[in-house]
Formats: sequence, structure tokens, C-alpha cells
Amino acid sequence: MEVNKGKYAADLSSIREAQARINSFIHKTPVMTSESLDAISGRRLFFKCECFQKGGAFKFRGACNAVFSLDDHQAAKGVVTHSSGNHAAALALAAKLRGIPAHIVIPKNAPQCKVQNVVRYGGQVIWSEATVPSREKTATKVLQETGAVLIHPYNDGRIISGQGTISLELLEQAPEIDTIIVPISGGGLISGVALAAKSINPAIRVLAAEPKGANDAAQSKAAGRIVTLPETNTVADGLRAFLGELTWPIVRDFVDDIITVDDTEIIEAMRLCYEILKVAVEPSGAIGLAAVLSDSFRNNPAWKDCNQIGIILSGGIGNHRT
Amino acid sequence: MEVNKGKYAADLSSIREAQARINSFIHKTPVMTSESLDAISGRRLFFKCECFQKGGAFKFRGACNAVFSLDDHQAAKGVVTHSSGNHAAALALAAKLRGIPAHIVIPKNAPQCKVQNVVRYGGQVIWSEATVPSREKTATKVLQETGAVLIHPYNDGRIISGQGTISLELLEQAPEIDTIIVPISGGGLISGVALAAKSINPAIRVLAAEPKGANDAAQSKAAGRIVTLPETNTVADGLRAFLGELTWPIVRDFVDDIITVDDTEIIEAMRLCYEILKVAVEPSGAIGLAAVLSDSFRNNPAWKDCNQIGIILSGGIGNHRT
Repeated sequence: MEVNKGKYAADLSSIREAQARINSFIHKTPVMTSESLDAISGRRLFFKCECFQKGGAFKFRGACNAVFSLDDHQAAKGVVTHSSGNHAAALALAAKLRGIPAHIVIPKNAPQCKVQNVVRYGGQVIWSEATVPSREKTATKVLQETGAVLIHPYNDGRIISGQGTISLELLEQAPEIDTIIVPISGGGLISGVALAAKSINPAIRVLAAEPKGANDAAQSKAAGRIVTLPETNTVADGLRAFLGELTWPIVRDFVDDIITVDDTEIIEAMRLCYEILKVAVEPSGAIGLAAVLSDSFRNNPAWKDCNQIGIILSGGIGNHRT
Repeated sequence: MEVNKGKYAADLSSIREAQARINSFIHKTPVMTSESLDAISGRRLFFKCECFQKGGAFKFRGACNAVFSLDDHQAAKGVVTHSSGNHAAALALAAKLRGIPAHIVIPKNAPQCKVQNVVRYGGQVIWSEATVPSREKTATKVLQETGAVLIHPYNDGRIISGQGTISLELLEQAPEIDTIIVPISGGGLISGVALAAKSINPAIRVLAAEPKGANDAAQSKAAGRIVTLPETNTVADGLRAFLGELTWPIVRDFVDDIITVDDTEIIEAMRLCYEILKVAVEPSGAIGLAAVLSDSFRNNPAWKDCNQIGIILSGGIGNHRT
């Protein structure tokens, strides 16, 4: 399908603009290959190592694009988010680079390491209760008091465009790629990656990798509408968000399929990353490798000619990386 | 000092020849930077990630150069070594690529993972007793029976030239480097790195990083002759070898200083590699970072203007990497 400019929250030109905007701030992450993992998978694999991105994950691309998209007047009032994960740390870091405040709403039960990452990058922590209503209410209060701009972790065109810069780099580094496998959660990463990749080469397949215990995207694709789940249960704690209204149409139209894997497969992939690639990734970051090694991918005749596969590795252990 | 062609076991031209010979077999490893580690160290650091090299360590460069230097007649009889570490796995892998036998003498008490690495790459394991005389005697027997060529892990010009290709890559990737810090053990790595770097830019400082519990190189530099130790005691088990007759003159003439660090510093550096760089390195591989963070380096006025520092990271956990 042709990428219809204006129909979606981002497009190739907004992604190229993002690249120009963030290029001097981000790491151009390496692409690694491994003959051992090629032999295990039976394909040629290209690992785009976003775990080496600043902030420890691809999230810094989108956060940086969002922060540097603001005009000076908006920017002076700062940014807000109520994500407590990699996006929070990435937003704090991007705001620090621009010299503006980042107000990060964090629930009281958040792991200490996540709080530390935000503090390390100069983010201002505002505590909320653990519930989603409390987090949203606290964020709204901060917005009202400060006039800062809310930067959603994925349901935002600036974020999607920033994440899409991965495809621009990857297809330059490994132009032979015919397939890209991408972790899916809220859909910001895969939306940007799919829009950019399919605009450059419409024949490229874009496949999502999702935990079976948080398979809202697979259910959404099957139902033809956004499906949310009453609860999620997976070791890949970064992949528990649901698709948003801006990411869903892109996932619906440009993601060829969703491969679901169980936690055992994710942990095995994480082990292979560590032992063979020598790269420390968290479960959410290793899921692309889990997908390519899964029986459901291997045995699906639709993917038998996916031979040159880009896999986005993201998220280090502890998430701190600059 | 000018690099006097013919005086040492390798030189810039033998290193360039090695690069042409091995280039299609090796990984060009990425150089990573980290603003966090720059802030901690007070310098700009460039990490040459040889832990991502095939075989899991820089050793594959030298092994590959040695194996592909052999003429067809020599090569057909295979290669032998009695190292049981990264060199053994690297030699087995290089021999496999050339399609010739690799006879690897391994003491019965070697860790299982080291044996597995050799077997995985198709090496033929020959067991010896744990003592050095038994290992050497067994290797000699294999040499006599097979006519194969002994490839020493470091005291060999082909090995030194192969390891030196790291400098060619590194100075192309980060030409601003004014200092390179290199782990030292038998001296093969640092000999190649120093010869290449100082031939290209005589102003570059080359510093060795050595464990205090195996400080034979520091003692040798101080004494002006090869010093060996009755015993070694360090967590960096890959750095317990002593300088050889071919590496010593190069270390003596081209290594500016030896920085010794204790095991606590090595383990802290390994932790920083894992947590901040997201890279899994063994203690021997992290020692360059330990050196740059050590008080003895920081407080030494001779090194206060070492501002752009290349650090060779080598050796992953488990050593398997292709």
C-alpha cells in the first residue's frame, strides 16, 4: 500500500525531518551480524543495536524529535510525561540537552533503577499513586501548573517520526534487508519503522513481535479494531502498552503480521544475545530474535522467503546508556 | 622512535598485508562512545569493541592472518596450538574457514566452556595433563605426527600483524585519538597495535593495562629485560601470560607506560561496561577502562593531556562469538 501523506500521523518526509533534527544528538547505532545466529535461524540476520542508543533504548530518538520540534516559547515551559520507563529517561535526557525542564510523573511503586535514570538525566520527579487514574490526574495537574507540553510515549506523530529514523539508518547500513522484525507495544516504534521502510521499499515486509501474554496488537489486527486487554502477563515488561489511535491505523495498514512468542522463547533469545552477541538486552529488547526463532515464524510458508532480516534490538538491562 | 623495518617481528607493511588478507573474514568492529563514561573519566573515550569480533575476541585477527599466510602445502597439514583460551577457539575457526585441520592441545582441567568453543568451531581436541611440560610435550608429539604448523598465541609475527589491524580500523574510525590503552599479557595485541599506531602517527601514546597480580610487563619495563613471575593472581585470567622474545622488544620500544590496576578496579570496569555500554566483557577485556579510571592514571601528570583515548575492549563472557 502506498503511504498516503496526511492520512497518518507521520510520513517519510516527517521522518527525514526528524533525522535532520536529531542527528547530532543521537548515536548512529551499529548493525551487528552473527554467523552462529544465522545458522540457528536459517536466515541472514542484521541486528540494529538500539540498546546502544543514548538513554539505553530507541525511545531517545522520538523524545529528542519531540523536544526539538517545540518552538522556543513552548519549550521554555518544559515537557511532561507519565511514563516511568525508557521514554521517561529519554525525555529527561532530551530536555536536558535543550536546557528545559522535564516533569516526570512516576508512581510510588516504580523500580528504583527507573527513578534513578530519570534523576540522572536531570528530570524532575513528581510522585503519584500507582493507579493509572492517579498518574493521569497528577500529570494533568502538572500541565496546568506549568504550562508544559505533554509528550506521550507513542501516540504522537513527533515520536513516531523520531523512531522511524531507525529505518533510514538500517536500510543504509544493510540495503539488502527484505524484512524487518520489530517489538510492538504501544506501536510508536513499529509505526515509524514501517512507514519509513515501506516508503523507501514497498516490498519490504514489516513484522511485529509481541508477547503472548500481552497480545493486544495481534488481537487488534485479527478484529480490525483496537482491542485492549483486562490484564497482561509477560516477562517483557516494556511491551504491555496497548495501541493508540494514531499508531493503530499505521499498524493496521503497514504491518504485515504479528508474531507472538511466549516468555520462555523471550528469555532464550535474551540469553543468546548475551552469550553470542555479547550484548545486554532486557526481555522486551530481545523479542525480535525470539520471533525469528519461533516455530510460528519458521513454519509459516508466508515468510519462507524472508531471507535478509533486520531485527531491532532495544533496551538494555537497567536502561542507562549515554 | 621510528619503526625500523626488519628490526621487529612486524611492521606497518606486514600489518597492512594482514588487513588485506583477513578483511573478508573478520568483523569490522564498531567504536562506541558514552557521554556518561566520558563524564566519569574526564576524557573522551572511544571503545573499540573487539568483544564483538568473531570468536569473541581480537584473537581471531591474528589466527586468521597466520592460517591464511600458510602456503597450500603447509596449510594442508593443519595447525597446532596448546593455548586453551580465546586463541584456541580463534585458531579452530580460522582453520575451519580455510578447510584445514586445527589440532588443539587442551589440559584435562580446562573449563568446559573453553573446550566447547574449540569443538564448536571444528577443532580437534587433544588432551594433555594440566602441567605446562605435559602440554608442550603433547603439542610436540602432534607436530611430529601430523607435520602441522605450530601457531603460538602471541610470540609470532603473523599473530602480531593480525592484531595490529585493530589500529588501522580504529584510527580510521576515530582519527582524533591521541592515546590508545591496550590490555597486556603475552604482548601480541599491544605489539601490533603500537607498531601500527605509531607508524601512522608517532605522537600517539600507547599505554598498557595490566593486573597488579600479574604485573610481569610492568616489572620487565622497569628492569629493561623480560621478567617472569613465579605465580600470578588475578581475576583477569586471560592476562596471566608473560612477554615473549618477539613481543618484548616492541613493548620495550613502543609502549609508553604500563598502568597496573587491582582486581577490584577490573570488576568495577566490567560492571560499567555491562550497565552503561550494555556490553558483556570478561575481566581481561574490561581492564583498559579500569586503567583510565584508576588513580595512577588520573594523577599522573604525564598523561594529563591524553584527552581522546581509544580503549580496546575484548573478550566476551563465554568467548563464543561469530
